[in-house]
Amino acid sequence: MSEQNYKIAVCQLRTELSQPETLDKAETMVKEAAENGAKVVCLPEMFNCPYSKNYFRKIAALGHEETFTRMSGWAKDNGIILIGGSIPETEDGKIYNTCFVFDENGRNIARHRKVHLFDVDIPGMRFSESHTFSPGSDITVFDTKYGRMGAAICFDVRFPEMFRAMAKRGAEIIFLPAQFNMKTGPGHWKQSISMRALDNEVFFVGAAAARYDGFDYECWGHSAVIDPYGYAIAECDETEQILYAEIDPERISAVRGQLPTFTRLREDVYSVAR
Amino acid sequence: MSEQNYKIAVCQLRTELSQPETLDKAETMVKEAAENGAKVVCLPEMFNCPYSKNYFRKIAALGHEETFTRMSGWAKDNGIILIGGSIPETEDGKIYNTCFVFDENGRNIARHRKVHLFDVDIPGMRFSESHTFSPGSDITVFDTKYGRMGAAICFDVRFPEMFRAMAKRGAEIIFLPAQFNMKTGPGHWKQSISMRALDNEVFFVGAAAARYDGFDYECWGHSAVIDPYGYAIAECDETEQILYAEIDPERISAVRGQLPTFTRLREDVYSVAR
Repeated sequence: MSEQNYKIAVCQLRTELSQPETLDKAETMVKEAAENGAKVVCLPEMFNCPYSKNYFRKIAALGHEETFTRMSGWAKDNGIILIGGSIPETEDGKIYNTCFVFDENGRNIARHRKVHLFDVDIPGMRFSESHTFSPGSDITVFDTKYGRMGAAICFDVRFPEMFRAMAKRGAEIIFLPAQFNMKTGPGHWKQSISMRALDNEVFFVGAAAARYDGFDYECWGHSAVIDPYGYAIAECDETEQILYAEIDPERISAVRGQLPTFTRLREDVYSVAR
Repeated sequence: MSEQNYKIAVCQLRTELSQPETLDKAETMVKEAAENGAKVVCLPEMFNCPYSKNYFRKIAALGHEETFTRMSGWAKDNGIILIGGSIPETEDGKIYNTCFVFDENGRNIARHRKVHLFDVDIPGMRFSESHTFSPGSDITVFDTKYGRMGAAICFDVRFPEMFRAMAKRGAEIIFLPAQFNMKTGPGHWKQSISMRALDNEVFFVGAAAARYDGFDYECWGHSAVIDPYGYAIAECDETEQILYAEIDPERISAVRGQLPTFTRLREDVYSVAR
């Protein structure tokens, strides 16, 4: 378990309709976060692609290589761990909603393909990611000099087993690039990210996009960093901004000692994902 | 799956220091709930025993038979399903924190012994149920004429696998007699019961005791009934009262269709409790 405190940042970016404009802005925000002391920086879901069925295939057709290469550079140039939100990734004719992670040398150290695609039909919100995307099949944890971390994407948060498995594999902090919306955000967003933190007694980072008023899909925003006791240590509204939080890894063992839940699972009574 | 709507009630009872007084009050409240149309009535955790290490063994020594027999009578006399909160149950020299369930004929149809005992040491709250109680080892679901139901007790709620297993076994509504407190209640109570409902897309009933101001252990109260979308359809403050809610079992399949999570578990990626 990591022992040093470190600062993290969420770049709650608003994706523009022009990809070059978005990438330049992301570069500027990541640099600012690093200049302000962040050692780990997280971008939102689909940060290089407007979140709409009218853009997914078009942006995917551009290929993911340019964004991948630029992210690697942002990590290396700023000496940070970059949790690269997510972007459309293409392989063998399939498109994935993918988070690439880079270490401080710009090396790609993890890749998470969204496992649970966003297919909903609630009043006022119909969406089918699976019309465009293929699902991943892996649980993603990775080691950094700040300890073991996990990454998942948006709708993945609705499946507690995935986060249990990450924590069982030793993740101390889990990053969730996301775009909840105006229908599901108010009631479900903060509660969901907070409970995944509390259930596993880990840090949890919900990295939302900023809201684009009037766009097809309006993101709820409200990025937040949750501590292992399930309380927000940093949170914001829906506007474009950089959110910072100080992570004290020792809080994990402290909370697990005070309120023993993760350490008291009754694996003789039920199976536990790992 | 049940098709008829039915009314439920939570008797948010304040346990008195005198057991006869408490039992008489519980009888009156259950009768009132039934007279107001409730078909399923739930009592709080340890409703016949002040929630304190100074009372557990003393009340346990009285035996659980009298409370058991009276609960059976309350169910039969009122023609209701009674989720009997919990009481100290003694067997073979051990004490359990146990929920007995009775059908409308007064027949005991289920028994849940709290699996996860409340052992915490957080600032301002140190408690060790395991000094007095032995843990159960079973997940509890049971059939009624209103459909399949589940029961668990208080700290059990902190372990998502238990509720996943109940839902996988077909429970449509889960009752949780409980006594969260003034430290853990404000941040964790409503969020926890809401997420167990949402994760499994079932109804969830958090049946708290009323607060006894100045007693050793002050209960948070705030009983609530949560719908399968994770929203409260009934909730109250900390005072003694009866809380009612109308249960529409068709909401379960409706929500599971609109926001497919429980039906889209990736059992190829992680193990799921059942």
